[in-house]
Amino acid sequence: MLPRTYESQNCSVARTLEVLGDRWTILIVRDAFLGIRRFEDFQRNLGLARNVLADRLGRLVEEGVLERRRYQERPERFEYRLTEKGIDLWPVTVALMHWGDRHYPAEGGSPRVILHRDCGGELTRHLTCAKCGAELGPRDVVTESGPGDRAHPPDRTVASAAA
Amino acid sequence: MLPRTYESQNCSVARTLEVLGDRWTILIVRDAFLGIRRFEDFQRNLGLARNVLADRLGRLVEEGVLERRRYQERPERFEYRLTEKGIDLWPVTVALMHWGDRHYPAEGGSPRVILHRDCGGELTRHLTCAKCGAELGPRDVVTESGPGDRAHPPDRTVASAAA
Repeated sequence: MLPRTYESQNCSVARTLEVLGDRWTILIVRDAFLGIRRFEDFQRNLGLARNVLADRLGRLVEEGVLERRRYQERPERFEYRLTEKGIDLWPVTVALMHWGDRHYPAEGGSPRVILHRDCGGELTRHLTCAKCGAELGPRDVVTESGPGDRAHPPDRTVASAAA
Repeated sequence: MLPRTYESQNCSVARTLEVLGDRWTILIVRDAFLGIRRFEDFQRNLGLARNVLADRLGRLVEEGVLERRRYQERPERFEYRLTEKGIDLWPVTVALMHWGDRHYPAEGGSPRVILHRDCGGELTRHLTCAKCGAELGPRDVVTESGPGDRAHPPDRTVASAAA
């Protein structure tokens, strides 16, 4: 028997996984941190079916991780932005990225690097700046394409969502 | 179209999710951090089908996250232990737990608390000790049942796997 939820498990990891659900959901959150806000842009970046994307976005809105906001009236258009609860997922996405960087290194190095906005130091595993030692949050950093990025040469092209 | 892998995505988050796969896999890793090593104990704790558990454990061994070790000869019995690569997933499980603790609080408080072995201070989001400020890793902490644990009153019953 495969329970769909983990209610019998009084565990915060299990509860979090109920919300984050499948892998697509975590990738949507990652994209939101990279500044993606519109349905078409999520769709293009993730390459997943529109109905699946709509379902996952709807779930994240229900759970209060994303907020759906109208940004245009005629025709009506909406965008999806991280709420404070969503921004709190930053340590999760950073931890996933650091583990992938270390154990499945891309050719040339990390595809993305997260740098302290003020001094350019790299983000450590302790969510501090490797250069100045400051404790960092998502609003203190910029995400840049790194040496292992196939699509772009290293450049300040990728903005931080929480900027 | 739903690609099974994210090869087109040159991203360390996506690569990590290819390995961690579904939610069960992350819960198996969590259990390994809590000191669970034997098939029967994973099975009892997670309540998932034996064939699914066997598949997920096999995948984690293939990826080098867990190591399968014989601990008894007649009859042959094996246990599963985190490798160094597996222990490196500690920040991921901690970040998932912290988010659940904050946004889906259990009645009474956190089901589990992670404390600095030396001074008893709580683990912060920066993976430091709230009391003495030391930078902490999985070998520096003990996991205890917390005020929100329905199964056990707060007690030093849950050992740390990496001890």
